[in-house]
Amino acid sequence: MAPAAVCNNTNCLHGSAESRQTPIFKDQLSLDDQFAKLVSGIPLTTYYNDPSVSPIPVSWGAATPTSRGPIVASRAGKGVKKHNTIGSYGGCYNIYHALAVASHQLNPEYRADYTNAEPAYHFKPQPQWFNKEKIVALDPLGHLAPWEYGHIAESEEVEIKPTISITKAHLQLLEMEDYVKKGELEVDGEVVVNQAGDLAVTKLAVDPVWYLPGVAKRFGISEIELRRALFNDTCGMYPELLTRPDIKTFLPPIGGLTVYIFGNPENISDSSKKLALRVHDSCGGSDVFGSDICTCRPYLMFGIREAVKEAQAGGAGAVVYFQKEGRALGEVTKYLVYNARKRGGDSAAEYFKRTECIAGVRDMRFQQLMPDILHWLGITKIDRMLSMSNMKYDAIVESGIQIVERVPIPEDMIPADGQVEIDAKIQAGYFTTGNQITEEELKSTMGRSYTELK
Amino acid sequence: MAPAAVCNNTNCLHGSAESRQTPIFKDQLSLDDQFAKLVSGIPLTTYYNDPSVSPIPVSWGAATPTSRGPIVASRAGKGVKKHNTIGSYGGCYNIYHALAVASHQLNPEYRADYTNAEPAYHFKPQPQWFNKEKIVALDPLGHLAPWEYGHIAESEEVEIKPTISITKAHLQLLEMEDYVKKGELEVDGEVVVNQAGDLAVTKLAVDPVWYLPGVAKRFGISEIELRRALFNDTCGMYPELLTRPDIKTFLPPIGGLTVYIFGNPENISDSSKKLALRVHDSCGGSDVFGSDICTCRPYLMFGIREAVKEAQAGGAGAVVYFQKEGRALGEVTKYLVYNARKRGGDSAAEYFKRTECIAGVRDMRFQQLMPDILHWLGITKIDRMLSMSNMKYDAIVESGIQIVERVPIPEDMIPADGQVEIDAKIQAGYFTTGNQITEEELKSTMGRSYTELK
Repeated sequence: MAPAAVCNNTNCLHGSAESRQTPIFKDQLSLDDQFAKLVSGIPLTTYYNDPSVSPIPVSWGAATPTSRGPIVASRAGKGVKKHNTIGSYGGCYNIYHALAVASHQLNPEYRADYTNAEPAYHFKPQPQWFNKEKIVALDPLGHLAPWEYGHIAESEEVEIKPTISITKAHLQLLEMEDYVKKGELEVDGEVVVNQAGDLAVTKLAVDPVWYLPGVAKRFGISEIELRRALFNDTCGMYPELLTRPDIKTFLPPIGGLTVYIFGNPENISDSSKKLALRVHDSCGGSDVFGSDICTCRPYLMFGIREAVKEAQAGGAGAVVYFQKEGRALGEVTKYLVYNARKRGGDSAAEYFKRTECIAGVRDMRFQQLMPDILHWLGITKIDRMLSMSNMKYDAIVESGIQIVERVPIPEDMIPADGQVEIDAKIQAGYFTTGNQITEEELKSTMGRSYTELK
Repeated sequence: MAPAAVCNNTNCLHGSAESRQTPIFKDQLSLDDQFAKLVSGIPLTTYYNDPSVSPIPVSWGAATPTSRGPIVASRAGKGVKKHNTIGSYGGCYNIYHALAVASHQLNPEYRADYTNAEPAYHFKPQPQWFNKEKIVALDPLGHLAPWEYGHIAESEEVEIKPTISITKAHLQLLEMEDYVKKGELEVDGEVVVNQAGDLAVTKLAVDPVWYLPGVAKRFGISEIELRRALFNDTCGMYPELLTRPDIKTFLPPIGGLTVYIFGNPENISDSSKKLALRVHDSCGGSDVFGSDICTCRPYLMFGIREAVKEAQAGGAGAVVYFQKEGRALGEVTKYLVYNARKRGGDSAAEYFKRTECIAGVRDMRFQQLMPDILHWLGITKIDRMLSMSNMKYDAIVESGIQIVERVPIPEDMIPADGQVEIDAKIQAGYFTTGNQITEEELKSTMGRSYTELK
């Protein structure tokens, strides 16, 4: 073969035949030797028709934990032969687990002791937990794994871990303290526990677990198309997506979600009680650091306040927080878009085009998978949907949950430099109770210029 | 082979030979047919000794962009043959990119238009950028990719994307407004721009790019051990870790980091100017939602304030924010640990044991890789290290950066239920200017009990 383009660094590995046999770096093995050591004893993938493979059965949507079976996503013990799920536990933190094992700080055969770790609130099973149309993006039994399936972990000698956990907390937010001071939030001693505006909350952490046929259906594509695209576009992540058609569940290495519930969690599945809900996709720059180019933290705080008020009034209030930074485009892309916006004259008319130029799409959050957590919570009706997003609205309503009222962010909560975002979104279909934005207004809504960028 | 344990659901896929040939679900292809369609035309992995493979050369640490070469982590165009990095762009959001492609919303051959997206601040190249000992966990040229390597992307017909982007922002934080009101922060019109405490900032988003031999060295293990553990422990993610010993770079699908710089970014690499720095690992429950069981957001706000003050005084101030939720154990594990702590009587003496029971380790953050961003910024001395962590201190000092003073969180900023965390950490080696904690005190520092957990 023609050698790769020569570079100046004599230490560079060229793709030539001779370099594979001879050491390149001083004291380094040849590529042939490296390869032999790398692959020794490790199967590159497993195959559906290998007679020694025997995945523990999983029946997505089955009526009981026993008939459903555990989600087994670990190679510990006999997991190579018996795992029934592609990927590994821990969401996008599985790499750190691997580093801990690699550096001899964690024994991969360590089995967790879940004493006293069981959920801090007992959520009653909902019919939706056993409906494979309603829940495809999380394991409805994920919070019960150690207790329902511990005996299987022992008898089958595999590792089974929970993918949902439930605890309680107190929140201290200056925004809530402010609301109390201004009389916009009352102290009731239960939800708002004191004058400082501290909140009592029940919260759930949820890692994604995908039922691949169900996820494909949500996108209107075949399971085969989905699996091939997942494998190909990630440049070869998890060949079992191709070689294990018998395995239908997958743990994608992405961030999960958190649910914050105010008031009695029992009320959230009771459609006779009013529910105020905000679904929020993460934005580190605003949620944590208060960047004024967007409305994220202000809308989140407004959402918490309104959820709290509904709980205080005897109903339920919840905020669902998804790890989907920058519309799931990530923060690197986000800042590139900011720069293009600011240098191009930051008008609302051009807002989405800037993202499309760089990313090829406007939004990769895929709200089709979002309602699953609402179904898990047993929600059938949302009285006050604290969101303007048409994409979120459509996904929720199309999944069979009723939305009574939509509540936009109050005008006075929009930071000055965040008007561009809001106007562009309204023009694109986001809900508003104000006037629709005209094309003219869209062109004239301008963000702060970045003179330093010249 | 013996059939897998029978389950109650007649739709369940058993691992039997007959089920592979005959359809199981109505209208579904047999497993044999599914497999044929899944693997058609897609290589499960690529091999170092395949004569048609010709990775574009990369020389980590080389002295110029040209001799270093681009990081190519995409199968678009001729990427299957020419990629020189394992994994794909986008950190833990690459799965969403794959979904966009799978659902026909994004053309995988779309090439970004980076017009006007270039960095909002020109960071001068530092010697550390060309030192393969100093930087192994990010691409020091990652912010220049479209402009330095655009011509290669065209001539080689591959997709090359940036992994770092740099912009500017204004931050609005109630905590800063509070500090101004209380006289703990002054308005200078440049860094603190107004009475509301708004801050002007330069910020960088950085996705991880690993030079595998360098990462292995940081952990004191061989590259072969590292690659095998990464592949095995993630249950088979990226077989190229094993089959491409010729490729030394990897894009792990994990979250990245953000740097917030106050004042003139030029000062950060100038050791004649004072630098105040906080390194912060993310905690959504506190950073966003204000959970009072830990000190995260308070310490972060304190860190921002002190960084701002140093910038106002003519030096530099920075906060580096890593996506390492729950000490990189993730949020699901975090809540399990909270439950075990609260039910077990939440004493500081037992603080770490609870995590070890469930996770097998205390901490998976691996601060060994953390200093790389500091090296990128050209930092050689930190005058005020706004952190108590002995692990962060050791990693920074061992990497060759001097730390002059360590600044613990002020006592009055520790939430009442966060004392357990702080005392346990101090006893384990965290820095304090107060008294050391005795074993007795450790046992008596108790957190708020969760009566609702009974």
